[in-house]
Amino acid sequence: MSGGMDSCVTAAIARQTAEIAVLHASYGQRTERKELQCFHALADRFGAWKRLEVRLDHFRAIGGSSLTDSSIPIRDADLTNPDIPNTYVPFRNAHFLSIATSWAEVLGATKIFIGAVWEDSSGYPDCRPEYYEAFNKVIRAGTRPTTHITIETPLIHLSKLDIVKKGLELDAPFHLTWSCYRDSEAACGVCDSCALRLRAFQQAHVEDPIAYANKPEYARIM
Amino acid sequence: MSGGMDSCVTAAIARQTAEIAVLHASYGQRTERKELQCFHALADRFGAWKRLEVRLDHFRAIGGSSLTDSSIPIRDADLTNPDIPNTYVPFRNAHFLSIATSWAEVLGATKIFIGAVWEDSSGYPDCRPEYYEAFNKVIRAGTRPTTHITIETPLIHLSKLDIVKKGLELDAPFHLTWSCYRDSEAACGVCDSCALRLRAFQQAHVEDPIAYANKPEYARIM
Repeated sequence: MSGGMDSCVTAAIARQTAEIAVLHASYGQRTERKELQCFHALADRFGAWKRLEVRLDHFRAIGGSSLTDSSIPIRDADLTNPDIPNTYVPFRNAHFLSIATSWAEVLGATKIFIGAVWEDSSGYPDCRPEYYEAFNKVIRAGTRPTTHITIETPLIHLSKLDIVKKGLELDAPFHLTWSCYRDSEAACGVCDSCALRLRAFQQAHVEDPIAYANKPEYARIM
Repeated sequence: MSGGMDSCVTAAIARQTAEIAVLHASYGQRTERKELQCFHALADRFGAWKRLEVRLDHFRAIGGSSLTDSSIPIRDADLTNPDIPNTYVPFRNAHFLSIATSWAEVLGATKIFIGAVWEDSSGYPDCRPEYYEAFNKVIRAGTRPTTHITIETPLIHLSKLDIVKKGLELDAPFHLTWSCYRDSEAACGVCDSCALRLRAFQQAHVEDPIAYANKPEYARIM
């Protein structure tokens, strides 16, 4: 649970049917302090059964992404550009899924929820449905024969608009989330992540409850 | 490269055809100090192009293994017992492979070598050949379309005896390695890892160059 909108809605979905154990990673991303605060606020709000906070400092050593290397600028959103943005952190989600699987195997949990979005996303390869299908096979092969864990991606085929609607329906605490890639007081409103989020709220005709430094009208211009 | 016998021989194999970048993880395992020393000694010996040392402290928080939880005793070897030993660290190798894949994607490396052994092993599920086949599919799905990385497991179908022979053939520096699960001055000689190693050297009629506190005759009694 990053502390963003997608993981918040995913946690609200998972919480409907079971107790949840929540995992957060600090991996040298620019907004790690902010994300960690949101993670704990959300974990409190959801009454999480357990929480695990991990540090993955090697992402900074590995580099290759504007999220973890401050010498690479975050580009402003261009939602019509099909290229993978420089915010892509190479193979990042496999790290999160590996930790979640190890933890689930020890806890005896049977489902791992992740808020990956493919349909209406930035095009990160580790958000593809086939990626999660393949990872499920790795879990089956790489855990004890008595372990049965599957990854659940309830948002993967939803548009960002549908995610906002789903969150409103479940009373997800959007006011406790942070999605912006930039580390500033208010969300920048112009990075890929802000653009995708703002467009969805604008399409839903609902005010996004968090503060923005800029609020372009994405729903109209795109 | 853990600093054990298998990763040492694997590095010697990889080194035959390319420069190598070597990765080591400290994950709260009992022998992490010793392993890290061996890692650096081996990296020096192999003239590694790059080295990356990572800390995965969450394994201790996750627990579930006698390697990372000091309240669970390491059992002595019983090489006839087919159960997965309590030294199994849940889903551990996926963490290593994820880091290696992220790093390889940034470096532009095309092969990840890992010294997993299945045929003559402790029966850890994340050493199975099908596990690595499945992980290769995850890499294909979860990295950039222009990235081509595959996992190589040159030892997976070898017996420990064959691994010792291969290492001798390649002049692998066995004297710089550490395999024992216990953190003591000399290797204990009686944990699973020592037993498998000692039996192989005894079968090869070669003296294992590292010091042991006990040296049972495994090749005869099994």
